[in-house]
Amino acid sequence: MAAINANFLKLKAGYLFPEIARRVKAYGEANPAQAARIIRCGIGDVTEPLPPAVIQAMHEGVDELACRETFKGYGPEQGYEFLRQTIVDHQFAGLGIGADEVFISDGSKCDTGNILDIFGKGNVIAITDPVYPVYVDTNVMAGNTGDADATGAYDGLLYLPCNAANGFVADVPQQRADIIYLCFPNNPTGAVATRAQLAAWVAYARANDSVILFDAAYEAYIRDPAIPRSIFEIEGARDCAIEFRSFSKNGGFTGVRCAYVVIPKTVTGSDGTGGRVSLHQLWSRRHSTKFNGASYPVQKGAAAVFSEAGKIQVASLIDHYMGNAKLLREACAAAGLPVFGGVNAPYVWVACPAGLGSWDMFDRMLLEAQVVITPGSGFGSAGEGYFRISAFNSRANVEQACQRLLALLG
Amino acid sequence: MAAINANFLKLKAGYLFPEIARRVKAYGEANPAQAARIIRCGIGDVTEPLPPAVIQAMHEGVDELACRETFKGYGPEQGYEFLRQTIVDHQFAGLGIGADEVFISDGSKCDTGNILDIFGKGNVIAITDPVYPVYVDTNVMAGNTGDADATGAYDGLLYLPCNAANGFVADVPQQRADIIYLCFPNNPTGAVATRAQLAAWVAYARANDSVILFDAAYEAYIRDPAIPRSIFEIEGARDCAIEFRSFSKNGGFTGVRCAYVVIPKTVTGSDGTGGRVSLHQLWSRRHSTKFNGASYPVQKGAAAVFSEAGKIQVASLIDHYMGNAKLLREACAAAGLPVFGGVNAPYVWVACPAGLGSWDMFDRMLLEAQVVITPGSGFGSAGEGYFRISAFNSRANVEQACQRLLALLG
Repeated sequence: MAAINANFLKLKAGYLFPEIARRVKAYGEANPAQAARIIRCGIGDVTEPLPPAVIQAMHEGVDELACRETFKGYGPEQGYEFLRQTIVDHQFAGLGIGADEVFISDGSKCDTGNILDIFGKGNVIAITDPVYPVYVDTNVMAGNTGDADATGAYDGLLYLPCNAANGFVADVPQQRADIIYLCFPNNPTGAVATRAQLAAWVAYARANDSVILFDAAYEAYIRDPAIPRSIFEIEGARDCAIEFRSFSKNGGFTGVRCAYVVIPKTVTGSDGTGGRVSLHQLWSRRHSTKFNGASYPVQKGAAAVFSEAGKIQVASLIDHYMGNAKLLREACAAAGLPVFGGVNAPYVWVACPAGLGSWDMFDRMLLEAQVVITPGSGFGSAGEGYFRISAFNSRANVEQACQRLLALLG
Repeated sequence: MAAINANFLKLKAGYLFPEIARRVKAYGEANPAQAARIIRCGIGDVTEPLPPAVIQAMHEGVDELACRETFKGYGPEQGYEFLRQTIVDHQFAGLGIGADEVFISDGSKCDTGNILDIFGKGNVIAITDPVYPVYVDTNVMAGNTGDADATGAYDGLLYLPCNAANGFVADVPQQRADIIYLCFPNNPTGAVATRAQLAAWVAYARANDSVILFDAAYEAYIRDPAIPRSIFEIEGARDCAIEFRSFSKNGGFTGVRCAYVVIPKTVTGSDGTGGRVSLHQLWSRRHSTKFNGASYPVQKGAAAVFSEAGKIQVASLIDHYMGNAKLLREACAAAGLPVFGGVNAPYVWVACPAGLGSWDMFDRMLLEAQVVITPGSGFGSAGEGYFRISAFNSRANVEQACQRLLALLG
């Protein structure tokens, strides 16, 4: 009889967002009169159309597939050179990253999960709390944890608490960690790390010979020019960091699917017998064997994000969402709630009214205001007592959500 | 120091197709005058443009993303209902498969590799020889094997030899296997399994409580109405089989990326403590956590494969490639070589001239005829002494390849 991966059985209930979707659906079905009023500020999903430059490039990509002379079959598993080079030119200029260190994929969720394929067992894995649930769940599936306790924390993970006291930026721990997940601008808290804070992490990683998995999916939302957009802006990071980037939140590709991983050739791990192995080489083998390249018209569209027109159009999208974030911040503050994030990030992180837990607040907002938020506890036990509001919405919806929030709590 | 997955170090050299690409590139660079003459019948990659119905649907999908009212962000991880239901209606009618048992993905290579995530350790894994290398390599990466021996066979796998004596259809083994990979129409041999042969496998799987991983990526090429296109045409398969399907070889989606897995809710595995767990439930969790849906315009295009116009256009593509297969079969036979496959499959499997090994034949065809084939030994030690010619090409190229083959060997 085939043995299943019993690590899956350690996973708690549903993945956060399906659980939210389930509650919203159940509410809408039970309250059809209210269903049309529901405003979704829960899942961090873009709402505005793709930039015209992207649309045009995707149409061109589709047309190339309509004609024998320009037809493209299997592309390079690592992505087309035109896209890899464009990414380096526009996102990593002067940072010493080569086009062959960029691996195009169909999404950061996939990349941040699949990256565990190249790591072995026995690593001490550090994860911030609260955190994007995919980092935790994929480690559980990979057998890198024990069971969860009553708070949902898994045995064997090194949790790095993030709270108002440390500005939601984890301090470098006393213990050694082999692999550290960092995400800035942060999902869910909207926190950003200063150059000094990132430099401390890079110094820690180099001192402990650890690898930083740096998720920069939201870098486009950084407005403060002093805040690094890439871990590779920090001296020494080329020796100890892998960076994840996405087209989901700049170009609006959540339904289009394109992302990439940057793995410098100088990052290594231990083979267990005293040797060092290039993680770039391992990921390249993994990508060639278990992936077959991102869709060609999608890669064409992704490259157009960096065209002159594309850059202007993306900037306008970011301005729109950050205008929403400002309104949400102001409304929550006016309602008397402590507010974090939302300045260099599309997420506003808010303390619940005194005495309310995260899911209580979720239910109250859904039932009484028909506004969907994300309960902070869904991101880890340190998120209890907070909720996340996403700025990804139309202006009209955000204004309406702000009004309802104030009516409910103000 | 971060431990790497040392199982990767057991992998032999490069993945087969990158190795072929490397040799072809090196030859072309060393012989620029001959480079333009090279005809690629190696990798099984389509060459003809996408069906017009697919092109139109993809354009429509892109246009929907250009407009706020029709914009699509994150889709369901398991795929849009419109595509899942269309697949069931057109490919599994009457076989008892529900739309919620179909999981849309970005490729069968990914699916056949990723499926191992839901299985545990200690399974006896049966693999035919020769075989699509991804099945083997992903098991090596997952730690399900020991080291390879001099022939390239990995310790711990149960190899099922396929040869001229059994018509390249593996016999049911005497030993118990927990997981069995079957691929029909077969890559690389082009063999198909009769209903009786598949029924024997299903009976074996049910008797041994094993799971069949059935790769049907080439089902569209089956011309003989007596040959099953799906494992689910066999009574009892719903209890023991998972099927992989792709749009790569019917619609020509190798560069577009869309495929799917069918997992009946009735297929189970052991949790190690006496319980049975639904593999559907595990894959659903895996898909939700480590995947974010296939690209929306791509799913639109995939559904158009089953439109009235799409079906006619796809049939014409298949006719074209199968016409090529016939020419290749005839040329190889005329050259005096024993020929297999190519009747219900786009691959022709050919015995090398006496005394020539697979890579010898590869080199000879490349150097003397500028035709790229795939060495049979790249698919496993039982493939030694054979080569694969792919029918995926233009008619002119295939005619030219046939002429050169005859000139070289005839």
